[in-house]
Amino acid sequence: MSQLLRVQNFTVSSDGYGAGEGQSLERPFGHADPMTLMAWAVATASFPNRTRPGGSRGLDDYFTRDFAHGIGAEIMGRNKFSPHRGPWEDLEWQGWWGEDPPFHTPVFVMTHHVRPSFTLSDTTFHFVDADPATVLEKARAAAGGADVRLGGGATVIRQFLDADLVDTLHVAVAPVELGAGSRLWTSPDELLDRFHHEVVPSPSGVTHHLFWRR
Amino acid sequence: MSQLLRVQNFTVSSDGYGAGEGQSLERPFGHADPMTLMAWAVATASFPNRTRPGGSRGLDDYFTRDFAHGIGAEIMGRNKFSPHRGPWEDLEWQGWWGEDPPFHTPVFVMTHHVRPSFTLSDTTFHFVDADPATVLEKARAAAGGADVRLGGGATVIRQFLDADLVDTLHVAVAPVELGAGSRLWTSPDELLDRFHHEVVPSPSGVTHHLFWRR
Repeated sequence: MSQLLRVQNFTVSSDGYGAGEGQSLERPFGHADPMTLMAWAVATASFPNRTRPGGSRGLDDYFTRDFAHGIGAEIMGRNKFSPHRGPWEDLEWQGWWGEDPPFHTPVFVMTHHVRPSFTLSDTTFHFVDADPATVLEKARAAAGGADVRLGGGATVIRQFLDADLVDTLHVAVAPVELGAGSRLWTSPDELLDRFHHEVVPSPSGVTHHLFWRR
Repeated sequence: MSQLLRVQNFTVSSDGYGAGEGQSLERPFGHADPMTLMAWAVATASFPNRTRPGGSRGLDDYFTRDFAHGIGAEIMGRNKFSPHRGPWEDLEWQGWWGEDPPFHTPVFVMTHHVRPSFTLSDTTFHFVDADPATVLEKARAAAGGADVRLGGGATVIRQFLDADLVDTLHVAVAPVELGAGSRLWTSPDELLDRFHHEVVPSPSGVTHHLFWRR
C-alpha cells in the first residue's frame, strides 16, 4: 500500500475560501469567524480538540474520526502555523495549539524563513524551505509508512494540487460566504479532470466533497 | 472514554433482512445473494477482504475504513460463524474466512454449544453460552480498552438492542427486497425512541443509517 497524501476536514466557505482576509493573533481566520466554518466538526464526538464527553456520532463524526487514522505526518503552510510574516522575530511562538497540539506526529511547516525544530508533547514541528515534492518526500520518510495529511491552508493545498501530488481530498463546504481571503477554488468542478468526486450533504448544513484520483 | 458497543457496516435489504432463508455451506446468506447486499462495500478501497489495489475512496469508503478503527473485539452469532446447527459434529470448521480472518482481534461467538477456542493468524475465536450482558463483559475485558464491534447477524443485534447494550449502529440499506430471512427491523423508526438517527444516501445506491444513543 503506497503512502497517500490526504486533505482531511478542510473547510471552506460556499464561495471557496478557507480563511478570510487580515489574519492576526486575535483573528487566526482573518475576518472569517472560525466557529461558523468549523461548527460542523466541533459538534462531533471525535473532534480532535474535544475536551468534554458527548458530541454527535452521525455522518460528520466519520470525518473527524478519520482525521488521525493512518496518518504519520502533516504538512502545513506557515500561515496555518502562525499569524506572523517575514523573518521570525519571536521564536517563542510555537503555534496556536498550546502544550498538546492535535497532530501527534511530525509536522512540516513550509516557509521561506526556517527556524529550529521543536517538540510539544508528541508533536514535532520542522520548518522547511523547499518545493512541494521535496517537502512531501521528507514527510513520507518521517511518517513511518503511514499516509501524510496536507493540512492547509488553501494556498498550500493549491501548490500541491498544481504539482499533482494530492491523492485524496475531503473538503467540507460551510453555508457561509466570505467574499475574500485565502481561496481554494472558484468551484469544485476545477478538480474533475483529475479526480472522482462525490457530493454528500450533511444534516448539519455543511456539504462534504470527496475527491480521489481517477 | 468508555468502551462503546458498535454495529458497523451491517447491511440489510430494503425490507430489513440481513440474510435470506435457508443458510447452507454453499449459500452463507441463504436465498440472498451476498454480492447484491455487499457490493457497496466490496467496491471500496478499504474493504477488509480486498486483495487487489484500487477501489473507490468516496463516502462508502469512510465506512469500510472505519471497520477496525478503535475496535478491540467482536461479538457474533453462531450463524455468522457457521451454517451448522445444534451440537458441533465437525470441529474442523473454523469459519468462512480461511487462514486469515478479517477480524484481527478476539471474537466471541454466542452459541448454546460451546467448543474450545482456536486461533487463526491474529484472530482468536471463543465460544460462549451466556446472555448478552455477560458476553459483552467478556468482550470488553478482551478488547484492551478499545470498543467492541457487534458483528451480527440480525438476531444477535436484536438481542443486544433488547438488552439496551448497543451504543452506535451503522446499517447500510441495500436496494433489494428479500421478503424473508433473518430480520433486523420492519422500519428503522423502531429505534428512534432511544437513538439519534441520520439517513445518508450514497451515490452507490445504498442508504447509510447512523444511530447513536440519545
